[in-house]
Amino acid sequence: MPGMAKSPVLTPRSEDFPRWYQELVGKAELAENGPVRGTMVIRPYGYAIWERMQQGMDARIKDAGAQNAYFPLLIPQSYMTKEAEHVEGFSPELAVVTHGGGKELEEPAVIRPTSETIINDHFSRWIQSYRDLPLLINQWANVVRWEMRPRLFLRTSEFLWQEGHTAHATYEEARDFAARIHRRVYEDFMTEVLAIDVVPGRKTARERFAGALNTLTLEAMMGDGKALQMGTSHELGQNFARAFGTRYLSREGGREYVWQTSWGSTTRMVGAMVMAHGDDDGLRLPPRLAPVQAVVLAVKGDEAVLAKVREVTDALRAAGIRAQADDRTDTPFGRRAVDWELKGVPVRIEIGPRDLEREPEHGGTAMLVRRVRGGKEPVRADALPGLLPDLLEEEQGLLLRQSRELRESRTSDVRTIEEAAEAATAGGWARIPWSVLGPEGEEKLAERSVTVRCLVAEDGTVPETDDAPGNLAVVARAY
Amino acid sequence: MPGMAKSPVLTPRSEDFPRWYQELVGKAELAENGPVRGTMVIRPYGYAIWERMQQGMDARIKDAGAQNAYFPLLIPQSYMTKEAEHVEGFSPELAVVTHGGGKELEEPAVIRPTSETIINDHFSRWIQSYRDLPLLINQWANVVRWEMRPRLFLRTSEFLWQEGHTAHATYEEARDFAARIHRRVYEDFMTEVLAIDVVPGRKTARERFAGALNTLTLEAMMGDGKALQMGTSHELGQNFARAFGTRYLSREGGREYVWQTSWGSTTRMVGAMVMAHGDDDGLRLPPRLAPVQAVVLAVKGDEAVLAKVREVTDALRAAGIRAQADDRTDTPFGRRAVDWELKGVPVRIEIGPRDLEREPEHGGTAMLVRRVRGGKEPVRADALPGLLPDLLEEEQGLLLRQSRELRESRTSDVRTIEEAAEAATAGGWARIPWSVLGPEGEEKLAERSVTVRCLVAEDGTVPETDDAPGNLAVVARAY
Repeated sequence: MPGMAKSPVLTPRSEDFPRWYQELVGKAELAENGPVRGTMVIRPYGYAIWERMQQGMDARIKDAGAQNAYFPLLIPQSYMTKEAEHVEGFSPELAVVTHGGGKELEEPAVIRPTSETIINDHFSRWIQSYRDLPLLINQWANVVRWEMRPRLFLRTSEFLWQEGHTAHATYEEARDFAARIHRRVYEDFMTEVLAIDVVPGRKTARERFAGALNTLTLEAMMGDGKALQMGTSHELGQNFARAFGTRYLSREGGREYVWQTSWGSTTRMVGAMVMAHGDDDGLRLPPRLAPVQAVVLAVKGDEAVLAKVREVTDALRAAGIRAQADDRTDTPFGRRAVDWELKGVPVRIEIGPRDLEREPEHGGTAMLVRRVRGGKEPVRADALPGLLPDLLEEEQGLLLRQSRELRESRTSDVRTIEEAAEAATAGGWARIPWSVLGPEGEEKLAERSVTVRCLVAEDGTVPETDDAPGNLAVVARAY
Repeated sequence: MPGMAKSPVLTPRSEDFPRWYQELVGKAELAENGPVRGTMVIRPYGYAIWERMQQGMDARIKDAGAQNAYFPLLIPQSYMTKEAEHVEGFSPELAVVTHGGGKELEEPAVIRPTSETIINDHFSRWIQSYRDLPLLINQWANVVRWEMRPRLFLRTSEFLWQEGHTAHATYEEARDFAARIHRRVYEDFMTEVLAIDVVPGRKTARERFAGALNTLTLEAMMGDGKALQMGTSHELGQNFARAFGTRYLSREGGREYVWQTSWGSTTRMVGAMVMAHGDDDGLRLPPRLAPVQAVVLAVKGDEAVLAKVREVTDALRAAGIRAQADDRTDTPFGRRAVDWELKGVPVRIEIGPRDLEREPEHGGTAMLVRRVRGGKEPVRADALPGLLPDLLEEEQGLLLRQSRELRESRTSDVRTIEEAAEAATAGGWARIPWSVLGPEGEEKLAERSVTVRCLVAEDGTVPETDDAPGNLAVVARAY
């Protein structure tokens, strides 16, 4: 209803960001809580977003040369203790199966919190010679890490993810592969498809994966200025190889331990979509990701309108656009429009009885509404299939630009630990020389719930060591 | 080595079918045992087959109107007891989580053996009015049913599957949807892609899913004459709706229980591929399913040969064929050829130094080997991209024909229970009038490990009741 003030569907972000998030996830029908504490039901619309994330990531992972496989959900409890740092990192989060098939088990099994141990157990048998290397494996799976303060998508006791595990003949090959996943799989997908201006960097010793020599990360700024870790890629060195005895016969005839990597990204990315791009009206999906790129709404339920809605939807689909018709005219039009806004569909096309009468030589008109740029404009119906591809790409670019502008405007360069803490607690990021901060400063920040998200070089590249001259620490509060 | 007798790579099927199966699954690198009893590691080649099964099924499931979603792995133990038959059916197979996050849980959780209970819990909140119906949900997930006598792919404690769950306003709609999944999703995929001549039918009361009014099934004959259930589709009636209070406001203003279906198919299908099509040399994959449709082998490692192998592979890929180059010339050629045969790749193209000299105006020659029809023939290299599409379809058709011929030749029509038992124990199927067999005869057969796989009508259609006149029982030993 033009001119009428809408009562807000969501608590405004500025008022209560966590509440806005929770309401959006519920009302956009992305997900809801499951009955066991910390578990999550991913509803069809939320799952369609995840499916498209899987497709985009899977194609890039396969391009990098990895093959998918599947390892068991259940791991003997004793496996978890084989690599010292690993057991320490995961013990408090394990779910333990003590009974199976009506009996108490001789050895309890844990539900995988990650699959390093069980995968290395098999790698140690599959890898005999240099001919078996590199071994590049990826798995799409569910994992369980018991969560005391759960939040849908962000921290759930069970989550979905991909986890990659590779073994290489040399340190350099492993390092390069971890970097390749970091930049050409994760960063490329997150900027090109998710339209999030992620920052690539390396984790400090304190923030590294349990058992890794080096962890590469991608950090994204959310709408409230906090950080969210979007994906990590680890150099595991020879730690797991030694723990599991994974050695290969080299060309020279020696028996060498392999060098390994692991890397993962999760359903957290769906939460990141919400918090990075959402506004007070709901989600805003980047068109390359959106399961529905354009929705065609029948304003009223008369036959001619419904026929036109179907015709336009078909024409858009024929033009390769993921279009959906909304002909549920027994629900008020205004409510449906608000609902599609909530769901973040990039383009809304509204067709009512009067549209059919206008410009009949062009198949009538339609009202075009763009979720990111905003504004309503009438367009000729027959022009839509030609217009939309470019228009969707414009919306895609606009979201990425807004993501970059948000991050740049809320990141400050500081020289003292106190300034860094203030910037982060005020809802932003700070960059501080690592030579100024150092591990002790990092501990001080941690007392104020501010962490080093990553180390970056001055020129924006990823440093090869923690202490490389000129390293900057990006610090923030984080999800 | 032409002319030399090969020592068999596998125990012949006629000698020991179960052993042949186990060896094939291992040597073709499809899967191996995991460390927790009954669990399975699906290796990349086995998983690539499953991925292609998922794609083919998922497209058909979406065409039927269902949307994917994801429900939690962990279910409160109390949920399992809500539907009486359901709890009885699954209790002995449950894996129970008693500890999480370092503490004993207040209520133990079970790992889903199937998701009827948890999904119905959410359906009961999502469904309010007739406008919310039909609700058509599918999930790709792992489930755990503790298995005392595990066998890779066929009976594993954890397996992968899709499970569909739907709710409808009327009995007729639910019945028709269960039938649609049965025939247009499952049967279509299994005959058209898997090239298995499945028999569609209905289960007897004894063999029905725990909590279902009617179970529709697809049964396939394996190479040893035993039966394997390939997928089932259940009419659940209002049993779960009553247990979970899932009611909707009808157009007439009444509060009605919904009518439901559920349906599933699993990684068993990979085992079925092996046992239905495999021969003494290994797997034989139908081209429409095969992750690799054509492998191009370098006989020797000289540069010109390797370049030609890459060129042919690229040309085949450009023609839309899933082709892979094998240039691992530090492994003997014979061993690689045997390996591709084991893996069931439909077409093998071998290129050696002498092939480059022949018919240079056609880019040289190659040796073409077909896995199903057999025989080796030289072909011009430049003709391959044009030849292969039809040739692959021929192989596809040949496998389906062989599957049909096997089933027909080993199915006998009998009139007595004794004859039925004999036919089944001799490694075949028997058809016997259900009016002759009946539930008592069924029990007698069960004592000899022979079961009624399904009831079919005389004209091959699926009967609407167990006792429809003319119903035939298909009886067999089964996996």
